[in-house]
Amino acid sequence: MSARPERLRVEGIAPGSVRVGGRAPASSDPLILAGPCAIESEEQALRIARRVAASGATGFRGGAFKPRTSPYDFQGLGEEGLAILARVRRETGLLICTEALDGEHLDAVARVADVVQIGSRNMDNPSLLARAGRCGRPVLLKRGFAATLDELLLAAEYVVANGNPRVLLCERGIRTFCDHSRATLDLHAVLRLRARTGLPVLVDPSHAAGLRADVLPLARAAAAVGADGVLVEVHDRPEEALCDGPQAISPDELDQLVGDVRALGGARPLGRCAS
Amino acid sequence: MSARPERLRVEGIAPGSVRVGGRAPASSDPLILAGPCAIESEEQALRIARRVAASGATGFRGGAFKPRTSPYDFQGLGEEGLAILARVRRETGLLICTEALDGEHLDAVARVADVVQIGSRNMDNPSLLARAGRCGRPVLLKRGFAATLDELLLAAEYVVANGNPRVLLCERGIRTFCDHSRATLDLHAVLRLRARTGLPVLVDPSHAAGLRADVLPLARAAAAVGADGVLVEVHDRPEEALCDGPQAISPDELDQLVGDVRALGGARPLGRCAS
Amino acid sequence: MSARPERLRVEGIAPGSVRVGGRAPASSDPLILAGPCAIESEEQALRIARRVAASGATGFRGGAFKPRTSPYDFQGLGEEGLAILARVRRETGLLICTEALDGEHLDAVARVADVVQIGSRNMDNPSLLARAGRCGRPVLLKRGFAATLDELLLAAEYVVANGNPRVLLCERGIRTFCDHSRATLDLHAVLRLRARTGLPVLVDPSHAAGLRADVLPLARAAAAVGADGVLVEVHDRPEEALCDGPQAISPDELDQLVGDVRALGGARPLGRCAS
Amino acid sequence: MSARPERLRVEGIAPGSVRVGGRAPASSDPLILAGPCAIESEEQALRIARRVAASGATGFRGGAFKPRTSPYDFQGLGEEGLAILARVRRETGLLICTEALDGEHLDAVARVADVVQIGSRNMDNPSLLARAGRCGRPVLLKRGFAATLDELLLAAEYVVANGNPRVLLCERGIRTFCDHSRATLDLHAVLRLRARTGLPVLVDPSHAAGLRADVLPLARAAAAVGADGVLVEVHDRPEEALCDGPQAISPDELDQLVGDVRALGGARPLGRCAS
Repeated sequence: MSARPERLRVEGIAPGSVRVGGRAPASSDPLILAGPCAIESEEQALRIARRVAASGATGFRGGAFKPRTSPYDFQGLGEEGLAILARVRRETGLLICTEALDGEHLDAVARVADVVQIGSRNMDNPSLLARAGRCGRPVLLKRGFAATLDELLLAAEYVVANGNPRVLLCERGIRTFCDHSRATLDLHAVLRLRARTGLPVLVDPSHAAGLRADVLPLARAAAAVGADGVLVEVHDRPEEALCDGPQAISPDELDQLVGDVRALGGARPLGRCAS
Repeated sequence: MSARPERLRVEGIAPGSVRVGGRAPASSDPLILAGPCAIESEEQALRIARRVAASGATGFRGGAFKPRTSPYDFQGLGEEGLAILARVRRETGLLICTEALDGEHLDAVARVADVVQIGSRNMDNPSLLARAGRCGRPVLLKRGFAATLDELLLAAEYVVANGNPRVLLCERGIRTFCDHSRATLDLHAVLRLRARTGLPVLVDPSHAAGLRADVLPLARAAAAVGADGVLVEVHDRPEEALCDGPQAISPDELDQLVGDVRALGGARPLGRCAS
Repeated sequence: MSARPERLRVEGIAPGSVRVGGRAPASSDPLILAGPCAIESEEQALRIARRVAASGATGFRGGAFKPRTSPYDFQGLGEEGLAILARVRRETGLLICTEALDGEHLDAVARVADVVQIGSRNMDNPSLLARAGRCGRPVLLKRGFAATLDELLLAAEYVVANGNPRVLLCERGIRTFCDHSRATLDLHAVLRLRARTGLPVLVDPSHAAGLRADVLPLARAAAAVGADGVLVEVHDRPEEALCDGPQAISPDELDQLVGDVRALGGARPLGRCAS
Repeated sequence: MSARPERLRVEGIAPGSVRVGGRAPASSDPLILAGPCAIESEEQALRIARRVAASGATGFRGGAFKPRTSPYDFQGLGEEGLAILARVRRETGLLICTEALDGEHLDAVARVADVVQIGSRNMDNPSLLARAGRCGRPVLLKRGFAATLDELLLAAEYVVANGNPRVLLCERGIRTFCDHSRATLDLHAVLRLRARTGLPVLVDPSHAAGLRADVLPLARAAAAVGADGVLVEVHDRPEEALCDGPQAISPDELDQLVGDVRALGGARPLGRCAS
């Protein structure tokens, strides 16, 4: 199998010109999407979202539908979570990025989200990808944790071939023999993806690190290597988080991350690196 | 995360007593499901199925809905393929095993299939797993190619927790650094899965090997290690196959495989190995 | 880089005709090398060796020089261990296989050993491989746990190119993301190595499994897939073993293993499978 | 097995105070070791070394003894290469870093080198590590391409336990399923190693990328994540290089790399990150 990167290059959006939700970030600004792993309550979401807005991040991320390895873990608030996200959007003006887990809920997600996330576990789900291609929203497609870049680009093709060229790719770590990371962050992939397509490439340091202390330096590295943005988990009370608390940074750490990523990413206008 | 194997052990079906489609194979017989990767036409399916029946295999496998990495590859005949499978069943009496790719088609698949297959790429798809738990048919759950055994067992839990204890697990190779296999067949997983659950464990040597010449000896190894059965791709005109021709064995090779697997597997009654 | 398998095929020894230590096993007999991970004392070595001889195994394996990950672990008895191995050879008539860790001790090892083992960690050590090529003894070369087959064959070339065509290859498991094995046993490699070279290919199920209960079924699978022999760790008091006790099988289990491997391997004469 | 990081922490040298060859770099300066993969001739080495010196890099790296996968590839100039390195040192004043492949040549290497490199393939070679512990020079220890961090730290222990606390660790990429990199650069390892030991941690982006165009941005990422320095391959005529030409950057690119790494690394004094 061989990916058809030239097609993505032609149909893709130029880095720096991505218009998510109708609003165009300044071309030199990295996209920073921050928020809790899961929407746990309206109070929790609004409390954290206000801190995210104050940090200068571009958007708010949080899961209403959660893909969990175990059927006995918290599966998200579902439709109620989407209603909370809509309120976060109204109150803070932040872009909303949230995940669609299956075709059944995709339209409901797309009504609320400025960016519809397709998670790592669904990168290989062609019917969901095809539906995402018809949802009318930019799609944030996370690389599967055992996917080659060809496979990621072909997954993007399922979205693009169904009429939606607004795809953002996201590196979030791959599965290796290593036991010191939740997943091994493959920053080289950012360079290769940018060299092969015109699609923006984001990095999620939180799921790769699995550890709060390492999120900020990995986000710095992502910006230095030329990523178009980062996706990061933030929680103000991580010990109470229903999901992934140990990897959530604090709002204060987010302030520093936004500054660092802007400084490092801003130094090199998007679209010029690694070609 | 820790899987809850004791639950699967309690609710699972004892190896050797698996009743697929209402018919119980003799307890010392390995389950052998053979057929082409994809249903390509009625003529092709019936032609191969007659050879499968003559070989003494238990069932016929073939995809009506095909999960493909690229949107530009053959995606299967869909509903038409299911109708062909129904005719194969009537004409040959073979058990039918075919894959359900998404919730939308699951009920249609379950009407035709004696065993509903959930493929590797959907092992991480909780909503499909939950639906499979309610489909009323035994479910053949293939291990994701980067899944740990805990993750596979928790995926099985999604099926079991939704009311369906008739789950068959299938090892089909994992993704590693190796370049000589399509996937590295992990036969040790068969032993660990049998030690941890009461569910039958099958092996698919075809997708692991990716190469016709190696399918038979890997199937022998699977039987020798104690697998409860094998899933194998067969085609009489592999050079014309629309999908995975290079790994399909011939009907003559299937005859040998059925004999070898029976001889090796039959030597040790199911349910007694690897404890 | 591309391996030059045709060279190995030309210079290699035909499977079934390997003459280790001047004695040719019957061509249909798998080679079974069994013994403790480490030589711990003369009494321990002789006690276990007598049981190995009684089982019908071909040779005795045991480490005098042990490659250990930590400098604080037992490093082997060294020269004293070699003297013990010489006595085992005299008393039992078993072939002796033991590891050479570095060039300094290679000659001393080669004086005692019928087969000089180069371990996984030294597969990438060209100066040791070159010396092994000049040692005058058959060399058992274990695959590195992250080595491709090309790399293994090129390592064999270092031995062959230095004048020694008597190389036996050994698959002992590779490093993957899996957490249920010490290493993932890659039995497909046995088929590919046999298809590409004329060298005998052994399998070490002990280091792959890491768990006593799984050694016997994996050895059966190795025989069924067509391996030319197995290397297996045995201890009669595993709880006292200074090294790798949990993966050592008992002498009684060895009796069964020898019978099973002979039955499965003997069913198919060496040199005819997987071509 | 568990590494004993506290010991390394106690005996290690504080980041920022590493004195290689008796000269202490300013504490806020990253260590930049640059040069060709292999010393090919005196003229080539001096020509490149002058450009390395002009770039402001700290030292010159180049192999006199080359570990090659194939016995038919160029194996380095050996002793002659060491003599050339000695001349490079005299003429340019650059620190010299070169690899010792086996114990036989270690003393000769240590007479010329300010830093003795132990390569990835020898990280598992305890006798070479022990000798390096007695060589009287700082040791640059590269992580094996399938080594966990515990294994790397235990390899460092072999050096330290033999009397040499001056160890520099180096991440150079790990072996994964990815086909877009020569090795997957694991920058998270830099953070974990710095958190667990007081040893300096360098990064080699050249061997990971395998591709010239990606070396500079990966070096930037290494600096941004907090590495204490980089090891980089440079060649002015890469098309003529006897080894690894495709990953060698040009002297002009080295100028930019030195500037970028200093700017990014200098922004955060060594020893303060990732705690």
